[in-house]
Order: sequence, then structure tokens, then C-alpha cells
Amino acid sequence: MIKNDLFLRALKGETVERPPVWMMRQAGRYLPDFMKLKEKYDFFTRCRTPELATEITVMPIHQVGTDAAILFSDILVVPQAMNIEVQMKDGIGPWLPNPVRTQTAVDQVIVPNIEETLGYVLDAVKMTKEALNDEVPLIGFAGSPWTILCYAVQGQGSKNFDKAKEFCFTNPVAAHTLLQKITDTTIAYLKAKVAAGVDAVQVFDSWGGMLSPVDYQEFSWKYIQQIIDALKDETPVIAFGKGCWFALQEMAKSGASALGVDWTCSARNARYLTGGNITLQGNFDPSRLLSPPAEIKKMVTQMINEFGKDRYIANLGHGILPNIPVDNAKAFVEAVKEYRG
Amino acid sequence: MIKNDLFLRALKGETVERPPVWMMRQAGRYLPDFMKLKEKYDFFTRCRTPELATEITVMPIHQVGTDAAILFSDILVVPQAMNIEVQMKDGIGPWLPNPVRTQTAVDQVIVPNIEETLGYVLDAVKMTKEALNDEVPLIGFAGSPWTILCYAVQGQGSKNFDKAKEFCFTNPVAAHTLLQKITDTTIAYLKAKVAAGVDAVQVFDSWGGMLSPVDYQEFSWKYIQQIIDALKDETPVIAFGKGCWFALQEMAKSGASALGVDWTCSARNARYLTGGNITLQGNFDPSRLLSPPAEIKKMVTQMINEFGKDRYIANLGHGILPNIPVDNAKAFVEAVKEYRG
Repeated sequence: MIKNDLFLRALKGETVERPPVWMMRQAGRYLPDFMKLKEKYDFFTRCRTPELATEITVMPIHQVGTDAAILFSDILVVPQAMNIEVQMKDGIGPWLPNPVRTQTAVDQVIVPNIEETLGYVLDAVKMTKEALNDEVPLIGFAGSPWTILCYAVQGQGSKNFDKAKEFCFTNPVAAHTLLQKITDTTIAYLKAKVAAGVDAVQVFDSWGGMLSPVDYQEFSWKYIQQIIDALKDETPVIAFGKGCWFALQEMAKSGASALGVDWTCSARNARYLTGGNITLQGNFDPSRLLSPPAEIKKMVTQMINEFGKDRYIANLGHGILPNIPVDNAKAFVEAVKEYRG
Repeated sequence: MIKNDLFLRALKGETVERPPVWMMRQAGRYLPDFMKLKEKYDFFTRCRTPELATEITVMPIHQVGTDAAILFSDILVVPQAMNIEVQMKDGIGPWLPNPVRTQTAVDQVIVPNIEETLGYVLDAVKMTKEALNDEVPLIGFAGSPWTILCYAVQGQGSKNFDKAKEFCFTNPVAAHTLLQKITDTTIAYLKAKVAAGVDAVQVFDSWGGMLSPVDYQEFSWKYIQQIIDALKDETPVIAFGKGCWFALQEMAKSGASALGVDWTCSARNARYLTGGNITLQGNFDPSRLLSPPAEIKKMVTQMINEFGKDRYIANLGHGILPNIPVDNAKAFVEAVKEYRG
């Protein structure tokens, strides 16, 4: 039904003529047309207005030519729906005026009705599916429970999320209660997105790499595993943990259809750690898109050679940076499309 | 000659009754007596006054009981000596008002005479050696050339040092010129420290983990290797790269006496990647020092069991955090001292 189904076939592990390609945060700040919308509408207005979310989601498909769309939204709409106030401040980023740092604060966090609180996302999914007209698949996403906890407790971005870790290490009972509430909400949220039409989902564990392997199992992975268990029979699930190379072996046994890899983990290490049979996604250093286009193309070809053409989805190792020239992003995508193994 | 030579014996790979223990940034902000000095003297006054540097360096030996001292100083005294202005701003950290971002700016960076520019560090080494009275060894340190470049180009701390990476990827010739100047300065600086009396040196590559394995070799490791080559016949060298698990195999062949490991790399992975024969140092998560002392002690015992008692130096996986209770730091050190394998 979907005309360009390379992405879905790679998720199934099928043999493909070339790998599919998309870029994390592809619907974003490096695109001049996005910046025009950004001047007119604030962050959460863009997220909450299905027409805007649709326009932004479809933008990179037409302008850069990726093989999959990812719904424009933010991982922090989930804590917002859970009764945690989230603002987006220029120059600072996420700002949560009332961080969750006590059992009492955790008790006030709710597991919301998704239709009531996040219906605007579901509307955006439906509208985007129509706009895409079955050209390419649509990905829905959510943050991992640990990554959401990081923001909920820290109250803003951080180099080391020290307050979030302090909360987990000094008040593990409250931390686990919060993580379970986030997990329950996320499962309901992703199931609703699938029902609304997304073709796959990705869980972003942006801050899993702050934890030791033992703490990662306890505070992050076991909740991601719950999400995979709940979703995997309905849709392909991609699990991406930045800096989580140490957990790849465990992640490969999870039932996820694919695993995201960042640029510090070589293709060889990633294939070795995951046993060679699961689809991998990544791992171009987003800063390397600042190299000249000819150099980008050479590096992309080498990346595909190392991962192999099959069971592979070309992507960056983290979100695209705002200062990337559109031509460089195009060179990245074109290099994948021109690949002849 | 040094009464407690556990640290030096571990660096030589000798069999020891228990592992030695020290903590990165042990002479610092978690100690109330340090905070009193901090109120009276600004950051670089503390670095530049040998009496103060000595007092601060010796403090954790008496108050926490570590098996080695590390000279109180900062990695940014090196760029300062190289004609790059460095300020330390409260609440911001390092602040370089004139970041080095062009070939012209690189040309203005000098390889200084160490005695003239950093003589105060050498005086502090001599004074500290006297104050230590051969109780424990003294470690000297420097930042890796890549890590120094990160600050020199970015101009301040950063989550991803995007401007530093942009500089390397768009102007590699200028970047390599700067890296070589930093390397030449660092070699002369560490040799002068050895001549002044330090018993070992550590190179801190705090931001090596921002790079892909290929870029790490090009922009970081090859310069650290130069430093090791130049120093290893004069003193034991410890190389610590935060997030640099992917380079451990290469690092193990470098001639370094020991390698630092952060908490995301398990003892098992670190031993496997380094071939099992080199001394390893680390890797307790600094945030885990917020756990109750009894729990800390249990985790320390397990850490030593996993690394093994020999060819091992107990330490944190990065610097101690300012909000750690002194009793928790003591519990960490005591647990190592009480270890019976």
C-alpha cells in the first residue's frame, strides 16, 4: 500500500536494493521553511495544531527526500499530559517550573486519558497520513521513561542530569513509581498513535548513556522493555539509546524490530554486540554534516559498507543540528539513494 | 622511599594486598575546608599560589585518606600559558572571551616557555612534595590536546562542543596546527612537572567521547600517543578518556601504565577490550556516591571483585561532585581499604 516501503522492509529484515534513509529531527531547525513557521508560532502551538504539525512533518519528504516521515512533536508532550507543567524557553530549551522531586510530587502525577490530553497528536497523525498519500511510512515516537524522568526531576536540560540521578539513587521507590506512571502513559499513547495510523514507532532514550550498565537496567531498560512488549505485536518498534552501546546485547533480545546506534559505536561493534541479525539504524555524527558535501558522500558510502546494505536504516547518530546547510543534509540523503553495494 | 606505595605498585602491575584508591577532583568542592578557601581566594589565585595549591592538594589525604595526592590545578592553565585568555566565571565555569576559530587566531597561539609561564605549578609541586613528606605519591596532570581545543574553540563548556567539532571538520589544517601546539606545550609541561617531583602523570580526555572512533583517532588519540611516547620512560602515564570505551583496545597498546575507565564501561568489558594485562582505573559513578554509605560500601566491594584486586586502581569514573557528603566519600575510600579479596 505504501509506495516507498524500503523503511518497512528493512524493519522486517528483508533484502532491499539499497538501505532506507531518514534523519532524526529531520522536521526541524535546519530547514528555512521551518524557521519561517517558527517565527510565527511558538513551540507548543506548532505541536498542538495538526495543520502545522502536518506541514512540518511532510516538509523534509519533499525538500530533502527521506524515505520515512516522523511526526513533528516533542517527547515532553507526555509529561505535560501527565500534569507536569512544561514550557519551552528560547535559549534554554525545556523548562519545568515544578520539578518532581518528592513522593508527594510523584503522587500528583497522573496517568491521563490519551484522547483527552493528547488528541491533538492523534489528529496530527491522521492529517499527516492523508497528506503523505501513502508515499512513505510515518513514524510515531515517544521518549523513554528514564529520559522523561530526567526532565521531570531535573526541570531542564543538563550535562549530567545530576538531580535526576540523585532522586533515583536516594529515593528509588518514588522514582520507580514515577517511571511506571510514565511507562503506562507511554504505552497507551503509542498504541493510540498506531490506531491513528503510524506505521512504526521509535522510543528515544536520549539520556540512558548517563547511567552505569546496572543502573540502566534498573531505571531505564526494564521500562523500555515493557513498552516493546506492549507494542511489538501491533507495529515495528525501534529502540534508540544514545550512549547505550553497553546494553545492545540485551536490547537485541527484546523483540524490537530495530536498534538505533550513535556515532561512538562503530558498525562493527554494533553488529558484534547485537549478534548480527537485528536491523540497526544510525549512526552518522550530526556534526560531520558540516563537512563538505563530497566528503559527506564518501563517509556515507563507507558507513553503509560497514553496516551492510540489508538489515540497516541509514540515519544520523542523534538529531540533526540547526546549523547544517540544507545542501549538506541533501548530500547525506542522496549518498544513500545512490548507493550501489 | 614513599611509605604508601600501593598506587605506584599497581601502576607497575605488581601484586598488592588491596587496590589503591584515590578520587578524581578529590581536592575540591565537596570538602568544607576547601569551600572556606574558595570564599577567600578566587579560582586562579588558588592555582597560582603554591601555598594554597599545596594546602588544597594535601587536604583529602588527611581528611578522606586516599592513597595518592593529585596536585590542585586546572587543565586550563595550559591554554592560559599559550596566550589564550581563560577566565573562571561563577555559575558558568570556564570562559574564554576570545575563542580560537581561525587560522589567524591559531597563529597567535604560542608554545610557551614553561618555567616562565607555569613556574607557579612547578613551585606548587615542590612545596606539595615537601608537605606530603613521602607519605603518598603525587600525581600531576594535563588535559588532552583535544579537550583543551574544545574549550579554546568553543569558548566555554558545552553539551556537545559543536563549535569545536565544526572547526575541526571544516578547517582541519588549522585544527591540527592548534592540536600540535597544545601537544608540544603539554609534553614540556608534564616533563617539567616530573622534574619538579610528581610521581606519575594523568592525561584527562574529558571530551574524547564526543567523537566517532575514526575522528577520535585523528583529532584526539594520536596527540595523546605523542604525550605518552614522550613521557613514558620518565614516569608512569595514566590515560583517561571519558566515553572512550571504543578506543580502549588501541589505548592498551600505547605504553601507558594505566587506563582510566568511566562507569558506562563495565569492568568485564574494560578487561576484555584492553586484553586483561594493563592496569585499569575507575569507575564508580560519581552520582552513586549519593547512595547511603552502607550501599556505597557494597557497590565498591562488587566493583573490586569485578575488576580484580591486582592491576587495578579504585577511583570514580569522573570527578567527584560538589554535593557529595564527606562521609560518603569516606565510605568509598574505607570500603577499598577494608577490601579482603
